[in-house]
Amino acid sequence: MSKGITPWEFELEQVDYVRIVEEFGLQPMTSELLKRMKNKHRLFERKVIFAHRDFGLILDAQDKGQEFVVLTGMMPSGKFHFGHKLIAELMAWYQEQGIMLYIPISDIEADVIRGIDADSCREIVVNEYILNYLALGVDLVSKDKCCLYSQWRNDLVRNLSFKAASKVTFSQMHAVYGFSNSDNMGKIFFPLIDAADILHPQLPERGGVKPVLVPVGIDQDPHLRVSRDIAPRLGMIKPSSIYTKMMSSLQGRGTKMSSSKPETAIFLTDTIEVVKQKLKDAFTGGRETIQEQKRLGGQPEKCVIYEFLLFHFEDELLESTYEKCTSGALLCGECKAVVSKRIVKFLEEIQRKREEAKSLLPKIYENQLI
Amino acid sequence: MSKGITPWEFELEQVDYVRIVEEFGLQPMTSELLKRMKNKHRLFERKVIFAHRDFGLILDAQDKGQEFVVLTGMMPSGKFHFGHKLIAELMAWYQEQGIMLYIPISDIEADVIRGIDADSCREIVVNEYILNYLALGVDLVSKDKCCLYSQWRNDLVRNLSFKAASKVTFSQMHAVYGFSNSDNMGKIFFPLIDAADILHPQLPERGGVKPVLVPVGIDQDPHLRVSRDIAPRLGMIKPSSIYTKMMSSLQGRGTKMSSSKPETAIFLTDTIEVVKQKLKDAFTGGRETIQEQKRLGGQPEKCVIYEFLLFHFEDELLESTYEKCTSGALLCGECKAVVSKRIVKFLEEIQRKREEAKSLLPKIYENQLI
Repeated sequence: MSKGITPWEFELEQVDYVRIVEEFGLQPMTSELLKRMKNKHRLFERKVIFAHRDFGLILDAQDKGQEFVVLTGMMPSGKFHFGHKLIAELMAWYQEQGIMLYIPISDIEADVIRGIDADSCREIVVNEYILNYLALGVDLVSKDKCCLYSQWRNDLVRNLSFKAASKVTFSQMHAVYGFSNSDNMGKIFFPLIDAADILHPQLPERGGVKPVLVPVGIDQDPHLRVSRDIAPRLGMIKPSSIYTKMMSSLQGRGTKMSSSKPETAIFLTDTIEVVKQKLKDAFTGGRETIQEQKRLGGQPEKCVIYEFLLFHFEDELLESTYEKCTSGALLCGECKAVVSKRIVKFLEEIQRKREEAKSLLPKIYENQLI
Repeated sequence: MSKGITPWEFELEQVDYVRIVEEFGLQPMTSELLKRMKNKHRLFERKVIFAHRDFGLILDAQDKGQEFVVLTGMMPSGKFHFGHKLIAELMAWYQEQGIMLYIPISDIEADVIRGIDADSCREIVVNEYILNYLALGVDLVSKDKCCLYSQWRNDLVRNLSFKAASKVTFSQMHAVYGFSNSDNMGKIFFPLIDAADILHPQLPERGGVKPVLVPVGIDQDPHLRVSRDIAPRLGMIKPSSIYTKMMSSLQGRGTKMSSSKPETAIFLTDTIEVVKQKLKDAFTGGRETIQEQKRLGGQPEKCVIYEFLLFHFEDELLESTYEKCTSGALLCGECKAVVSKRIVKFLEEIQRKREEAKSLLPKIYENQLI
């Protein structure tokens, strides 16, 4: 697949979003498109959503009052961090506007590709994903608002994956994913299950052909490319996508926050003590000396702490911090204390909501395909 | 796959079973093995079953009174001919001995690889396969005697296909099936559904690990090789197989009777008139002149008509025909008349039984996964 960014091995040394847009053949999220949106989530306003494919189709549908749905997957392979939070918030935001959600749980991939057994998978799905989604305001329970399902249990999806398979050649898949001969057949086939996930809201059993919006990280783009290739061959509309920037590692911009590397990320289930320590150790855009910082100001564009504000928190806090930082009025220690407090406040709230949400689990087990 | 014999394109100019056994790494069906069988189906006696893989495991299980099952697939892509009859008879024979049967209907393959839509597929399955199986004495209705199922509808099988996929590399599949880069992904993946069919009687949901005997034509051997490779990696026993010789084309030995070439085959649903004409036109082992035939005798080893007797009918008729043919006492015209009568008698009986069997169809629709 395109130059080393695959869903399996993702190592970015430096993130150049202009280059990514060009290389992946994405469309940049232009101000013309943003102007068409009647109300905008903060992630659009702040350009955290930096690119798309056919987002115009979604805006067209909205303009005409036509149906569209929003879909994103849960990959139960690790802990839920602030990067995942962005997608969950977008889902909640669309759902509030009356848009139906589709949320496949990638448990076939977790089992077959990553070797995570069913019990661990279920535990991760429930504790890391479902409870956090609920705490972040996504209604996973009401069937008319959200179709949450396990790949293992969704007949429509698995059957569609075989039909999709007949519409794409080995060469095409190889060009996108760059398999090697020693890869197992699961790894070679499973992207078609992801494609089937993305296409399945357009099945007759799901009400037929319609625009589908997929908010994802750029590392998931291969699945979009494949499902967009397949869609017209099955008489479906090419799915649209929007791409969020990736949260940086706590060690500094340039590498990304990762589920599998606890030191790089703040997980929504981290204890408050752990979070405080992680933030204390986090990389900032501070200058070498206090004198320099006061003279030149800090560098928010390099600062992981600032990124938290930019991606996650209120306008006022963001703006005042930017001003005080760049003017040299704010030193990193003070800033960290303020942001840390804000993050802790958020996490305490989420922890409380997660506890409350536990009462919904029996309904999810009962109603849904997990 | 080994030298041009694949389940998709099967063109044999000359059948050399000794070479096939060697090339495919099969074991010949030896008289030692046959001696171990307490009762033998005519196809064993007459060496129509010419080779096997681990048939000894099945005889061991029989000796020890341990469970084993017999499995073969229905490929709903064409009409049911006398070659298919051999396998159906074996299934009936094992079932009579109290052995549980598994009969997957390859409808994913039919749809995804061969482009046969669901309605046509169902029609072929019912009219060509199910009714003929029933007419040939296989009980497809009793759930404790036969597990008949559609690949599309069997969750266990599709899920197992993904697990199986993770146990085999692209290289291994390529070595067996010889894909090309322009093959679609369905063609590349679907053999794993066949492997899952073969392995699925060993799932815990099916009572756990046990020997499985798969009677097949040699063209299906790739699926056996793959499922035998995968079995131990899933903690299962390698499935055993037995191979029947292929019925020759009516145009002469060396090419095989084919579902897709009506002139080569007698279908069990052919009308009596058509059958009589096909047999009239069939290739025999007759000499150039009557004089020569009387002097040298006929050549049953080249004769398609004789093959019908050898593969399908009673010992007395077979033996008397052989004697009279090779001694020169019997001319091809007379012989054809006798054999034709025998085949017609059989087909009339089958037609009657197929009509009777129609009353069982509602039960099959209702009880089973088709």
